[in-house]
Amino acid sequence: MLKAQSVLVTGSNRGIGLEVIRQLAGNSSHPEWIFATCRDPEASHAQELKNLAAKHRGVKIIQLDVMDPSSIQTAAAKVTEHLQGTGLNLLINNAGIVRPSTVESETPENMSEVYKNNTIGPMMVSQAFLPLLRKASQESPQKGMSCSKAAIVNVSSASGSITEVLGWNVGHIINYRCSKAALNVLTRCQGLGLAEDKILCVALHPGWVQTDMGNAEGLAPMTVDTSVRAILNTLGRLTEKDNGAFVNWEGTAVPW
Amino acid sequence: MLKAQSVLVTGSNRGIGLEVIRQLAGNSSHPEWIFATCRDPEASHAQELKNLAAKHRGVKIIQLDVMDPSSIQTAAAKVTEHLQGTGLNLLINNAGIVRPSTVESETPENMSEVYKNNTIGPMMVSQAFLPLLRKASQESPQKGMSCSKAAIVNVSSASGSITEVLGWNVGHIINYRCSKAALNVLTRCQGLGLAEDKILCVALHPGWVQTDMGNAEGLAPMTVDTSVRAILNTLGRLTEKDNGAFVNWEGTAVPW
Repeated sequence: MLKAQSVLVTGSNRGIGLEVIRQLAGNSSHPEWIFATCRDPEASHAQELKNLAAKHRGVKIIQLDVMDPSSIQTAAAKVTEHLQGTGLNLLINNAGIVRPSTVESETPENMSEVYKNNTIGPMMVSQAFLPLLRKASQESPQKGMSCSKAAIVNVSSASGSITEVLGWNVGHIINYRCSKAALNVLTRCQGLGLAEDKILCVALHPGWVQTDMGNAEGLAPMTVDTSVRAILNTLGRLTEKDNGAFVNWEGTAVPW
Repeated sequence: MLKAQSVLVTGSNRGIGLEVIRQLAGNSSHPEWIFATCRDPEASHAQELKNLAAKHRGVKIIQLDVMDPSSIQTAAAKVTEHLQGTGLNLLINNAGIVRPSTVESETPENMSEVYKNNTIGPMMVSQAFLPLLRKASQESPQKGMSCSKAAIVNVSSASGSITEVLGWNVGHIINYRCSKAALNVLTRCQGLGLAEDKILCVALHPGWVQTDMGNAEGLAPMTVDTSVRAILNTLGRLTEKDNGAFVNWEGTAVPW
């Protein structure tokens, strides 16, 4: 079972991110700190998150734009202050975007923007929160690795599995697939580079979920609730055997 | 055996690209058209390529900066003019860059620049030359797919293999690995998207080669000559079975 005392989720104003915050906060043994970040906490599309935070004292909304290095630094400083000397157990890089495209119509602008958001963003956020993750790892009495101790979970997609190319017939979305394949190799590298810090690094395919993003064509088979329930269960079970791996919501390995 | 009548190679002023031009031009049954593109044909580091072109009439040097859409368009127009109504058989997206980095020190600037060069560049070049590749495919009497008929070869790297992460102990080079994993899924998508045009799309690992780029640490085991000799042999043997695949210089499959 996931027993992280502090969790941070990017892109948490809607979709999977919002549901992770909701289910974490609603759990009887919820984390002491739940940092819910989003690009614009004052926008109308963050209202549901604000309502959640009003109900649950542990939920702290933090402004964080994954494309903006200074916003990331400011967020890390705020989280450090909240944590009052303790570390961050679990970082979930969830914020993601996609632009419709085909092999022939894909544009360099979309490619760049989506890569900045989906790949470079998680890289920068991970770097900025690395001191807090290291602190959590060092101060944990647990041996081995776990999401309760210190972990980076990069929300990826089987759309970016080079083997599976999930959903090809629904959309080529080259920008998205490229960004997620790159995120997967980044995760593998983080797993190698941070192994001695005992920080678990995992790429996660949340399933094809009925979010605004995933269900544009009305074909997504899974509800957000089902996906997130399975994800949180899976996160509680991951160990060092999963470091640098790509797993789906149920913990099953996804081919690269 | 590779029997393409027209070949275009990006980044051909040095390393693997230059050697491909040299070996193609030196072959007794050489292609009629060998388009050798580079960013700055007037720079001193293009002198060897200019010497080659002076000796071999079929070699045409064309300015092409893979980061600059208008330069790509101008190059495509010039190649179209040279070809006088015939198509382009083989496009080799070879131009690549890398920046030293580690998991902790990687920068968003390097990530963006290398992705633009190594991933978005090949995508834009492929799009710009697609009409000529289609023409070559349509006018070929051959059934099936081959590099002699119509093909896109993306020079990738096992460094970007998420399974292998080749050369981790020599350098993290996150920028490069991410760009190549993304190039691999792009290749897979091109393979799916252009299959009905009978354009063969392949990602190629040239080996760890003694080029300026590959041998910064003096550890690369293979000469450029050996690598390119094997590559040209392999390109001559690829068929539709290899469409969307990742193979090394000898034609052996590389895991994603």
